[in-house]
Amino acid sequence: MCRDRLNNTYAQVMYDFSAEPGNNELTVKEGETVTVLNQNVGGGWIEAQNSRGESGLVPEDYLQVSVCDDDDDGEWDEEWDDARSTGGYGETTGEEEGEATGRNTHTHMKISLNKFAFSKIPNPEVYLLAKLPPKGKDRLAIYMGDVGPVWLYPQSPLDCVVADPKKGSKMYGLKSYIEYQVTPNTTNRPVNHRYKHFDWLYERLLEKFGSAIPIPSLPDKQVTGRFEEEFIKMRMERLQGWMCRMCRHPVVSNSDVFQLFLTYRDEKEWKTGKRRAEKDECVGPMVFSLIDPEAPELDIIEVEQKCELFSRFTKEMDDGVKDLLNVGNIHWKRCTGPLRKEYQKIGKAFQNLSSVFNTSGYTGEATLTDALTAAGKTYEEISQIVAEQPRKDLHFLMETNNEYKGLLGCFPDTIGVHKAAIEKVREGDKMVAAGKINTQDKGTMAKRISIMCYSLQAEMNHFHSNRIYDYNRVMQLYLEEQIRFYETVRGGQEREGSMKR
Amino acid sequence: MCRDRLNNTYAQVMYDFSAEPGNNELTVKEGETVTVLNQNVGGGWIEAQNSRGESGLVPEDYLQVSVCDDDDDGEWDEEWDDARSTGGYGETTGEEEGEATGRNTHTHMKISLNKFAFSKIPNPEVYLLAKLPPKGKDRLAIYMGDVGPVWLYPQSPLDCVVADPKKGSKMYGLKSYIEYQVTPNTTNRPVNHRYKHFDWLYERLLEKFGSAIPIPSLPDKQVTGRFEEEFIKMRMERLQGWMCRMCRHPVVSNSDVFQLFLTYRDEKEWKTGKRRAEKDECVGPMVFSLIDPEAPELDIIEVEQKCELFSRFTKEMDDGVKDLLNVGNIHWKRCTGPLRKEYQKIGKAFQNLSSVFNTSGYTGEATLTDALTAAGKTYEEISQIVAEQPRKDLHFLMETNNEYKGLLGCFPDTIGVHKAAIEKVREGDKMVAAGKINTQDKGTMAKRISIMCYSLQAEMNHFHSNRIYDYNRVMQLYLEEQIRFYETVRGGQEREGSMKR
Repeated sequence: MCRDRLNNTYAQVMYDFSAEPGNNELTVKEGETVTVLNQNVGGGWIEAQNSRGESGLVPEDYLQVSVCDDDDDGEWDEEWDDARSTGGYGETTGEEEGEATGRNTHTHMKISLNKFAFSKIPNPEVYLLAKLPPKGKDRLAIYMGDVGPVWLYPQSPLDCVVADPKKGSKMYGLKSYIEYQVTPNTTNRPVNHRYKHFDWLYERLLEKFGSAIPIPSLPDKQVTGRFEEEFIKMRMERLQGWMCRMCRHPVVSNSDVFQLFLTYRDEKEWKTGKRRAEKDECVGPMVFSLIDPEAPELDIIEVEQKCELFSRFTKEMDDGVKDLLNVGNIHWKRCTGPLRKEYQKIGKAFQNLSSVFNTSGYTGEATLTDALTAAGKTYEEISQIVAEQPRKDLHFLMETNNEYKGLLGCFPDTIGVHKAAIEKVREGDKMVAAGKINTQDKGTMAKRISIMCYSLQAEMNHFHSNRIYDYNRVMQLYLEEQIRFYETVRGGQEREGSMKR
Repeated sequence: MCRDRLNNTYAQVMYDFSAEPGNNELTVKEGETVTVLNQNVGGGWIEAQNSRGESGLVPEDYLQVSVCDDDDDGEWDEEWDDARSTGGYGETTGEEEGEATGRNTHTHMKISLNKFAFSKIPNPEVYLLAKLPPKGKDRLAIYMGDVGPVWLYPQSPLDCVVADPKKGSKMYGLKSYIEYQVTPNTTNRPVNHRYKHFDWLYERLLEKFGSAIPIPSLPDKQVTGRFEEEFIKMRMERLQGWMCRMCRHPVVSNSDVFQLFLTYRDEKEWKTGKRRAEKDECVGPMVFSLIDPEAPELDIIEVEQKCELFSRFTKEMDDGVKDLLNVGNIHWKRCTGPLRKEYQKIGKAFQNLSSVFNTSGYTGEATLTDALTAAGKTYEEISQIVAEQPRKDLHFLMETNNEYKGLLGCFPDTIGVHKAAIEKVREGDKMVAAGKINTQDKGTMAKRISIMCYSLQAEMNHFHSNRIYDYNRVMQLYLEEQIRFYETVRGGQEREGSMKR
């Protein structure tokens, strides 16, 4: 991120945004530059300050936080402890610096095409025309299922639990960090990992599989919570969610690097494995060389159509998900803000009236004043219920959609590799004419684009089945909580009503 | 009302008011002068324009609409038909001009102490020292009930129905008006009255009973509805409410003028009765001369204490009622505005996502897309229910509190007469010393202030018993509707939830 000598981070405003009064928001205009005060407020918001010194929240989608090319520190530490002492999440922690090495949200990456290879569309030529290495044991199996090409799924699905965050320290206690316990269901043996290990894993997976499989960013920037414990809990929950999604992917979960992360037995095995993974040369588009589906070669037209279909679908779903997140955010804020206050005020107004009535000196109005007081209290309870409801139902809906937002943000790059390959294959005749390739190479390219297309289809089918599972689950939970909500409120009202009669 | 040559009405801003965005409101500052565009938008709002030409709604309590002393036309017509054709409720109708002759809301009256006798605190001296006229048949009976002094209530309560508004015309059809049919339960024979007759009745009642009994203003300015039919319906409902309250008052309902209004048999009887009523000299503080409670004389200290108690109670209830009206207004606007839109948007977001999912080409997700669509539709239904709810429950709560706001606004003047009388009696010794009155006069004054105090107690007891009845009723209806509301929403959600399983 770009910082000036005062260590400030800046952002460019991409769209006009009007603050809603009383919600701690900041009105900004397209083209304006603001200072980023806190990127970790959560819920899709960034705390920013304008040139007039006014500060408030702005939706993160409305801002483009600057990325500099001169920022490339490979080493960082989780100095959240220091960060806390010098101003909490508003300050840039070592981890956030680390983001500049590639862990930004995907949208951001796309806009600020920086120097890191994986953020540009990798050139598929290396695979299309390469002399393939001998087939090893790490083949990626695709077979034809009911829905078309699918990855080979393991008999028993991998899963893991991220738990028990513990504070560790190094450099004689000068620097502290959090270590999480990760326990896979295969060995049932916990291994310890710091956030930076997760980040290392993410980079390896992105590098190796990014051309074929969308690898969502680690949940770092989206972490909410202003207090240490809340922050750690939230980060842990989201690391758990990220690990679950990786475990559910047959290709990712079966890879050497992922298995190493989950099952290394000692420091030596971890270090050896790390070194091996970092030396892996079958990365980027070369990952397609691991695939050899037993299926008829696909026509380039068909390949292109499928690619277009997936591109359109993921783009449209991305819009739909962002729309839902937007309105969900607004509703969340209304429930916990103005609506809560309003019900409180109605409650207070009823109770005030009851107090006044109690001073009348007139006999026989206890029933009325009791009823008014109870109605007032019911409204105060409704105020509480309404304010707490988002945490109960909207939370899960938002978390799931946030996860999908991250996942969908990876598709343009993944699909981009395929589109670039199609382009290349379409140029085949010209390349033959120019003597750059021979007709045999052209045949190889046609065969390989077909393999890539099977890979993309398998990945889309994986995405669809997960999507259906996840959304069915989240909708059911959401609607059940909503029913419980209206039942709770009605219950209170009914008790109230019956008291009056 | 003050108007300039362009026929504009102005108002002074009494308190700062911040507009809520998207709600068609106008931010105004204390001391600012605004042009009144429409006083009849209803719900306690006035449409106003500031000096920069911006216009929007401002709560009527925040504005003081100017009153001029040079505006005294005794004759007016209900030219709502003309008003409609020249710009609707925004234009000042003949009736509104009539308001300057005394039919403003009470609060307004207090502030702009104008030349009309009944808006100043009438001087109780006329009664305290007057030689009383011989006792006639129209005595106002007070007896000692369980709760203290009470008016004598009739065996069967008077009631009437205001219905069947009909358009009439005069001046060869050049001017048109609305005539309402008023049918009392005593004769069961309908009589016809125009709004201006109601207004005449109001003035007579105020003149005759205003010192002893709060006579609420006619519902004119508060009428909502942008279309003729809605306007007439609303006015009729409020005239009905006003008549009901008058019928329920034992003193008012039994008075000659009120009986004339309800039971006149022909034009001649009406005109004769009108003339007699207008000549009635037993008005203002002299109304106390009609009271002769059979009860021990009250000590001046006790009189003062009771007066203070009632003054404090009505002031505090006035604050409480206004508070409830304020928060009710805000809640009404939120339900019909932002909240409705928000639920609509959530509904649309779910349905959009469903549409996108439908284009996946993946098999077996009909259950999910059906559920998403249904959830979306449910939210659109909730949006409707939420928007319509205020009309079902809040409406009645607001109408009742509005009525009480009007009634409570009359108490300061009524209580003011009593306080002025107490002042006078306390000066008794000085007046004797100055030779203005003799000791016998002083005794008379003490006896008469005691009578006034019985009258005030009877009136307060009448107010309390009505208040308890009205608020019990409105709270019960409100809570029942609220339960129905949450049940309806929950029902929809539940159908939705069960579909999904």
